[in-house]
Amino acid sequence: MISVIASLSLCALAVYHGNAILACIAYSIAAYFVTLMLIPYWAPSFMGIGLSGSDLNKADRPVIPETMGAVCGIVYLFVLYLFTPSMFYQYIVTETSGGGNRDAGIELIGQSMSSFPHSKLAGYLSGILSLQSMLILGVADDLFDIRWRHKILLPAVAAVPLLIVYYVDFGVTFVMIPPKLQPLVGVSLIDLGIFYYVYMASVTIFCPNAINIFAGVNGLEVGQSVIIGICTIINDLSYISRPDHPAQFSHLMSFYLVLPFLGVSLALLKLNWFPAKVFVGDTYCYMAGMVFAVAGILGHFSKTMLLFFGPQVFNFIYSAPQLFSLIHCPRHRLPRLNEKTGRLEPSRANLKEHPPGTLGMLILHVFEKLHLVKLWRDDKGNVVETSNLTFITLVLVWFGPLREDILCTVLMVVQGAFGLTALGMRHYIAAIAFGSDNL
Amino acid sequence: MISVIASLSLCALAVYHGNAILACIAYSIAAYFVTLMLIPYWAPSFMGIGLSGSDLNKADRPVIPETMGAVCGIVYLFVLYLFTPSMFYQYIVTETSGGGNRDAGIELIGQSMSSFPHSKLAGYLSGILSLQSMLILGVADDLFDIRWRHKILLPAVAAVPLLIVYYVDFGVTFVMIPPKLQPLVGVSLIDLGIFYYVYMASVTIFCPNAINIFAGVNGLEVGQSVIIGICTIINDLSYISRPDHPAQFSHLMSFYLVLPFLGVSLALLKLNWFPAKVFVGDTYCYMAGMVFAVAGILGHFSKTMLLFFGPQVFNFIYSAPQLFSLIHCPRHRLPRLNEKTGRLEPSRANLKEHPPGTLGMLILHVFEKLHLVKLWRDDKGNVVETSNLTFITLVLVWFGPLREDILCTVLMVVQGAFGLTALGMRHYIAAIAFGSDNL
Repeated sequence: MISVIASLSLCALAVYHGNAILACIAYSIAAYFVTLMLIPYWAPSFMGIGLSGSDLNKADRPVIPETMGAVCGIVYLFVLYLFTPSMFYQYIVTETSGGGNRDAGIELIGQSMSSFPHSKLAGYLSGILSLQSMLILGVADDLFDIRWRHKILLPAVAAVPLLIVYYVDFGVTFVMIPPKLQPLVGVSLIDLGIFYYVYMASVTIFCPNAINIFAGVNGLEVGQSVIIGICTIINDLSYISRPDHPAQFSHLMSFYLVLPFLGVSLALLKLNWFPAKVFVGDTYCYMAGMVFAVAGILGHFSKTMLLFFGPQVFNFIYSAPQLFSLIHCPRHRLPRLNEKTGRLEPSRANLKEHPPGTLGMLILHVFEKLHLVKLWRDDKGNVVETSNLTFITLVLVWFGPLREDILCTVLMVVQGAFGLTALGMRHYIAAIAFGSDNL
Repeated sequence: MISVIASLSLCALAVYHGNAILACIAYSIAAYFVTLMLIPYWAPSFMGIGLSGSDLNKADRPVIPETMGAVCGIVYLFVLYLFTPSMFYQYIVTETSGGGNRDAGIELIGQSMSSFPHSKLAGYLSGILSLQSMLILGVADDLFDIRWRHKILLPAVAAVPLLIVYYVDFGVTFVMIPPKLQPLVGVSLIDLGIFYYVYMASVTIFCPNAINIFAGVNGLEVGQSVIIGICTIINDLSYISRPDHPAQFSHLMSFYLVLPFLGVSLALLKLNWFPAKVFVGDTYCYMAGMVFAVAGILGHFSKTMLLFFGPQVFNFIYSAPQLFSLIHCPRHRLPRLNEKTGRLEPSRANLKEHPPGTLGMLILHVFEKLHLVKLWRDDKGNVVETSNLTFITLVLVWFGPLREDILCTVLMVVQGAFGLTALGMRHYIAAIAFGSDNL
């Protein structure tokens, strides 16, 4: 309680001081403490309406609260609202006489103020609208257990406000062709038109679902989001630190969106870390993915953002043979708990009862050669079981058996290493392709 | 299904035609049919997670789905999103070369377009944000049964985005003093400053709660909202029909917000009308109140809007002696069903077990003289029971017993008569106070 009050006081100080970045940091700290206070306070109510689940990776399978991502989401959105005046503080102050009494505004009644960045405000609000829509649809999914083929499209529905405001307000659908390719194409800009909207919608569908399927171990959903968030912040800071950079405001917008989300996520991570006291729910996964999609789109760096999702992309491609039924896909592909050792082992798909076709078998043999799968054979040498094709299981094949928190740590380290490498490569390759990096 | 497809085709046609008002009408019709289709489709899922209630005003007390206002809310918000481009169609078209390929926008990359009404877009988006927040909090209330002293403030929380964007983007907190009073005050404008925000917050707290406590009869919550909505539309049309009126855009904004809400509300009314197949939930009452509060604030006619809430204001003041415990307030104050006649009779508060104090007794005696209450006495002339102090019960005291649908119709007629009178008086009194009406 003391930390909540202290962090809120810090907010008040930073807001009074008028520095947006300081205010954002203060709000993020406050978001951390408020979330940490609210989750245990609201959790019993969530359990009371059936939002709870059993932790299958523990010997005693305790029943703990589910959908705590909704608490994070509400705190996060509230911070975004409260932060709005700080974000535009410099404009508010220059528009009035400075004393807050706004008498300089009299002549402006009824007409829009000239220098105020209305379009940026509209973009920011459309981002919040999409995030809030995602929260509603995520909670609906947790409440109603929406079917897979429907829920995969929920983020696209939530993205509608973002795309529509983008259409109404900016409508810039050009992409720049790298100078070295320009002679081949003959133009320097290509108008992707409606395909640019298809691309943005795809980003918003991909990010939330990618986080949602890379899940199942205490702390993993939040852990990967925290790592991706830190990579984003590092990338943003490299632009923000250059005052005259044309992309500075875009990256400030991303910074303002991602940092408070890190705040609420770290609080959730503390409670969701092994042994988990709460589950995060699909709500959290969807919200997290949407935060990154919105930050990437509003910050105009969605391609860079997708680089940070490398492990998730790998997980999706690697899972594809099971997702598309070339190889049998059991109902659950979570790691298997060895109750004697307390460690997690790779879970397996039974191939004796569900033998794969020729293509499926070929994939398994190739994967085995590449050490990407573990196969179990009977006395006659026939393949009877395979480790499931998920990145989590693969890490267990390579390094397992592992205790749940060690497994999660390994996966987070991989995520971080990949993100930092991607960041370096992105600026290196951009320097080659475009003649110079845009930093 | 055919009507849904037909109405959606109508939308496509209207949007293609580029007339915002026609598009709004088409979307509202589509919203009606889509809501009518979705409610029966989603209702079983709502019942599955415990969102159902027993209809106490029927002999067999059937259990029917609750919180169907959430379905209305989702359809309504989706319509508001989809409508955004139509609302700003004229600006989008003039900003491009007109063919939709946007090549005229090249030079504008990175800078805000000059004539586009960004501030109006931001206002509209902030309104949607507040409505969406209200939907979330309303559903939370229906799910978790939040305590009265907390839930009464939920609309104020939902209003935060609206007020903050108002602060950031407009910040106009002046009110005009009627010319005849100007000599007394010495100025023509008064800056209410922070009190203007307190006033706006009060409006957003009042409207949703006013509808929420004027409830309990099949069709009443939706019926009163429909009548208030129609009054608002009539008022808006009287401004919209004058092309050069300075308040035209404000009232267009209100029109665009209220008409689709009438669409979803009429669909809900059809299913909630006696004998109700579904309940609307607190979600609907909060959403409805918030729609009117937002329309009033964004349309700058919140004082006129409050006039339409006359019966609700009366209901609140009339209830006050029971709400503030001067007179005993039973847990439920719904009308009482006489199972023999199938009609509703005034419900009563037992004063023998819970005798009121001197002030309470005085109020009751005064009310009895004014025919505002019915008292029951024992053989010795002591008051033992009183009809409950709600407007619904009062109508039953005057005209009852009535069948549930007749009661609701009477209340809706009163609401309509009051609204139209208020509308006439508002323009008449304004003409006197300000020298001329602003029409």
